[in-house]
Parts: sequence; C-alpha cells; structure tokens
Amino acid sequence: MTAQENPADSSATTTPAWGAPYLLYLGNAPDDLSIKTARGLAYWRPEWCLGQFRGPECKSWLDLPDMGFAEAKAAGADTMVLGIANAGGIMDPQMVRDVVAALDAGLNIASGLHKRLASHPEIAEAAARNGRALFDARYFPLSISVGKGLRRPGRRLLTVGTDCSTGKMYTTLALERELRKRGVAADFRATGQTGILIGGGGIPIDALIADFISGGAEWLTPGREDGGWDLIEGQGSLFHPSYAGVSLGLLHGAQPDALVLCHEPNRPHMRGLPHYGVPDLKRCLEANLQSARLTQPDVIAVGVSLNTSKLSAQEAADACKAAEDLLGLPCQDPVATGVDKIVDNLLSCFAS
Amino acid sequence: MTAQENPADSSATTTPAWGAPYLLYLGNAPDDLSIKTARGLAYWRPEWCLGQFRGPECKSWLDLPDMGFAEAKAAGADTMVLGIANAGGIMDPQMVRDVVAALDAGLNIASGLHKRLASHPEIAEAAARNGRALFDARYFPLSISVGKGLRRPGRRLLTVGTDCSTGKMYTTLALERELRKRGVAADFRATGQTGILIGGGGIPIDALIADFISGGAEWLTPGREDGGWDLIEGQGSLFHPSYAGVSLGLLHGAQPDALVLCHEPNRPHMRGLPHYGVPDLKRCLEANLQSARLTQPDVIAVGVSLNTSKLSAQEAADACKAAEDLLGLPCQDPVATGVDKIVDNLLSCFAS
Repeated sequence: MTAQENPADSSATTTPAWGAPYLLYLGNAPDDLSIKTARGLAYWRPEWCLGQFRGPECKSWLDLPDMGFAEAKAAGADTMVLGIANAGGIMDPQMVRDVVAALDAGLNIASGLHKRLASHPEIAEAAARNGRALFDARYFPLSISVGKGLRRPGRRLLTVGTDCSTGKMYTTLALERELRKRGVAADFRATGQTGILIGGGGIPIDALIADFISGGAEWLTPGREDGGWDLIEGQGSLFHPSYAGVSLGLLHGAQPDALVLCHEPNRPHMRGLPHYGVPDLKRCLEANLQSARLTQPDVIAVGVSLNTSKLSAQEAADACKAAEDLLGLPCQDPVATGVDKIVDNLLSCFAS
Repeated sequence: MTAQENPADSSATTTPAWGAPYLLYLGNAPDDLSIKTARGLAYWRPEWCLGQFRGPECKSWLDLPDMGFAEAKAAGADTMVLGIANAGGIMDPQMVRDVVAALDAGLNIASGLHKRLASHPEIAEAAARNGRALFDARYFPLSISVGKGLRRPGRRLLTVGTDCSTGKMYTTLALERELRKRGVAADFRATGQTGILIGGGGIPIDALIADFISGGAEWLTPGREDGGWDLIEGQGSLFHPSYAGVSLGLLHGAQPDALVLCHEPNRPHMRGLPHYGVPDLKRCLEANLQSARLTQPDVIAVGVSLNTSKLSAQEAADACKAAEDLLGLPCQDPVATGVDKIVDNLLSCFAS
C-alpha cells in the first residue's frame, strides 16, 4: 500500500491513527441516497471494506457481509466509517449508542457528518476510555494561508459541474484509475467528506472559513515536479446560487491546466432550487474557463463527463454524442463506459 | 437615535450590551494604516467618538481628545473600540493589559481583530469580574441557512471593486448619507469588521464557513417593503485570486438591483499580489454584471466610485471624466466630492 492507498499512512492531514480495513456503518438508513458515502467507499475502495453494519430498520444495503462491531474487529477491521447522511448531518441517539459500542469493541471511528464526533460527550469519553481515534472528515484542524495565486509547477486537472452532485468525484477517481493504469503518476485530491474518506486525506473545502477557499486549494495541491497529475475533485457549480463562491475559490486556487465538465442530462432544475434551471454546457464551460484564466491563462477543457445512470443505453450514447458535437470534446460516463477517451485527449494535449 | 444609529440597540446581530459613546483605542499604532478601523469610525460616526487612547509609542492620532480609561468612563464613554489592526490580528501583551484595565474602569470592549477577546483568559476574567460585554466584530454567533436564491422584495445596491480596499465601505456609507439627506429610506448593511462597528451590526462575510457566503448575504438583507434601499458593503473583487469566492457568494446572495464599481486609479498591482495586475474597469464591471444576473437578471450599474486620495485635484477630475466616458456612468470620489451624481442616476433609474 502506498501512502495514498491507506488513510492511516496519509500525511495529507494530521497523521490519523485510523485507517482501513473498514466496517461501513449504515445504521437505520431510510433509503439508498442516505448511504452515498458508504456506497462511494465500497465502489472505489472495495479492498478496504470488510463488511457493513445495518440497524434493525435499515432500508438499504451494499454487497458486503453484515457484521457486528466485535465480529468486525475480530475479522481485522480497524475503523468504522459512518457512511450515512441524514437531515442536518445530526446523529440520532441510536447512532451515538452504536458509535460508543463500536469504540468499546476496539474500533476507531471516521465520520462524514457535519457535527463533530467529540461534541457528543459519550463518544468523547468512550474514545478516551478505549484509546481510539475519532476522525471528522468535514473538520480541518490546520492553519493555512489565504491564496497567493503564485504559479507553481506540476500539472493539475479540476472537475467542474453544471450543478452539485453531477459526478465530479466519480469522474476524478475514474481519471486517477485510468491514468495509473497507463503508468502515469496521478493522485486524486479530495475536497469533500466522501472524497476525503476514499482518498485517505484532503481538505473539506466548503467547511473552511470563506477567506481561505483558494488558499485551501493551494494547500491541497502544492507544486509537484514528477511530471504527474493532481486530479482535483470539484465542488458545486459557478451557476449554483448557494455555493458558487466555493466553486470559484476552488477554481482559482486549483490553478488547473485542464478542466473536465461534469453534467447530468435531463435534470429538471438546480439541486435543491426548483426555481433555477441548469445552465447549458457551452455557457457553463466558457464561464469556468474564463474565471480559471485569472490564475492559469493557459487552461483548456479536455472532456465532458455525463452521469447517464437514469438514461437507457441508447439515450446515454445520444447524450454523449450531442455533447461531443456541441463542444468538440470527448464525452463519456465514468461509471458506464470509463474515461479512456478523455484521458487519450488529456495526454495528447499535454504530450510534451 | 434610531436602531441603526447606536450599536447598543441593534438587532442585526444578537443584542449586544455595548454601544456608543466610544473611546477609540489606538494603542501603540506604528502608522496611519494600522488605525484604519478607528479612522473609519471617527470619520463616519464622529458623534459617537468621545476620545482616543494612545500608548507611549503611538505614532498615529485622530482629531479627538486623548483620554485614559477612567477619564473616558467619567466623560460618559460606554465602550472602548480596539480600532487598530496589527500583523496577524494578534493582541500583544500590552494590549491585553490595557483591555483588562479598561474593563476594570467599567468600559465594555468591541474588537475588529481576528482573535476573539475571550480567548485571552485575563480578558475573559476581567469582563466577568466587572460584568462587562465583549464584542468581536469578526465573529458571527448565529446559525444561518445556505443561500436559496429566492427573489425577495425591496431594493438592494451592492458596491463591487476592481480590488480589495478600493473604497467600497466609504462609498456605501456615502450613498446612505446622500439618500437619507434626500429623504429616501436607506440602510448601510455591513459585511466587514470596520463596517460592523460603524453600522452597529452586520455580518462578517469573509469569516463565515464557505458554504454560507450567499446565505449570509441573504440573512443580512431580508426582503423589505418600505420602498427603501439596502446598501450593501462589498468585499474583495472577482479578480482577486485570494478572495474572489467571497465576492461571488456575496454578489449572488445580495441579489442586487444596482451595482456601483469602486476603483483606485494608478494602483500598481492587486493588493498583496505584485504578480497580478488590476483589471480594467469595463471588463471588471461586465464580469460583475454577468455573475449578478444569475440571481437578479435585471441588475444594472449606476455609477463608478474612485478613491482619488493619491491624485491631484486635476488628476482626480481627469480620472473621473475618463471613467465616465468609458462606461457611460457618473463617476465621483465619495470623500472628495460626495456621491450626488451617482444618487441622481440611481433615483432616475429606479424612479417608478
């Protein structure tokens, strides 16, 4: 395992005393949407995931063995990951009891929820009692500087989107997989809680103080000299009225050489905002390129990524073809077809 | 005094138990730049400022009587304002001792520094001992929602800039003064620490968690039905690589009907970034209008504000004329000439 392959060895944040193998906690998840974090981990890091813990009312599951806390520990699990999201990111009393029981069974805990684990006194006490680690992926403990905008060496690719939740993380991870398959040094750089748990480090960019967004992106991707790529997980959209500030700061701080535009066809409106339509691809890409040029005048777009999970195979192929014709860029679905054509184009554009 | 005229009565943040009259603390300020906050208060709210406290090594002063803490209290001062900025926003030991002495003399304390007053145990203890209030203008204690982008009633004007520190706060306050002089309801809405101390409330927009920038602007300016204007203090610049995320979130959340572009002619480069030039006025204004249209499609620009403090009178007049010719908008320096022409244009554009 390399440093990036096991969070326990990561130096991307303060060295955590936790890591794979994982027990994925699904609790009493009411639906598939609420286990997005656990599903992402199981999809991208199956070799890290030993089992799942499901409560009596859990309505969702992964393709993993069901395990209790002691059973998981005995099977070699190091850390239980709270892989579920619920309204407001709050832990209900049952979840707190389960976390305490897992700590008492000897597991460390990693969480992608908003509220910090140690803010629950029972959890803080159980962790101390058992000498276990608590890791909050949404919390960033280090002091960083504001962005400087200084040109730095190395190549960086950023995924940008027409909206939130259009597949930026999946696309970025698929690019990492494809580039590594071809022997090109490439590292996923996580900016959200699920990505941080998958990547074993990163920075929760939307949880930083507003003045430090671009500084956070600069911290995440310092210059590299090995000819490899930093592949940066994008967040939000320049066209999302709630979060565009995060997207712009990330775009400036990332100083990307290359952009991949991520989109979900047929989405009726911007996520969470029924009164806002989704921008068209051309306008969205042009706005991102224009803003990115402030810190990286030579930025180019290298591909389009579509989430076609709700389309038939024919509809998906038609949608990709339409995007290719519109933008003159290769277009693929990272889950359905992989990203080989996008990587072909990336490597061809940066062949020197 | 109306609510907005005395911070003690403000409901813009949690009701503070502090307010004017003020003693302005200059400490051992090494130069004029470091007393920017105190100078802003003395300029915009002279009726609130009883005196200044200067340490033995203070190199700067205002046109106010020198006073000790007990003397200021006896003269009727309610609150001492830490009106100075120093590197990193840290308080040195002498400043901590002075704050403790002021609390012991019966004054409340308001601060625009980064580090919270109560994080110094001696200060927290002295405040408790004397039953005095500690107010940190850079800290926002309330929970707010992410931005929704819903159209809301009322008229809003936002100042935007080619760079940081181009006079956005002064311009916004000058607009408030001029509109009120004409009998138009208008309220300064502060987004930075100095503005919050002058305005008696507001939200430190760049100190919010990044996800909440536009939500903060929506919180600051809820719909109003009285036909009056919310005049929103802008922050940073869409063209500043360190802070553009804050500027964009504020622009989206403000949902402005009108923009005023603020600029300092002849600035050699972006503030703090010698490797970045200042954008030209036309490009900067167009980028702001284009981004603002996401949440307010009918936004227009109504004027340009120049900080001509480093120019001769003739140079200043020439610079204003050049900006007027370039953009077809009235251009003034709010300090040197006031903003009557800009307000004429604003009221003419929104006459209905």
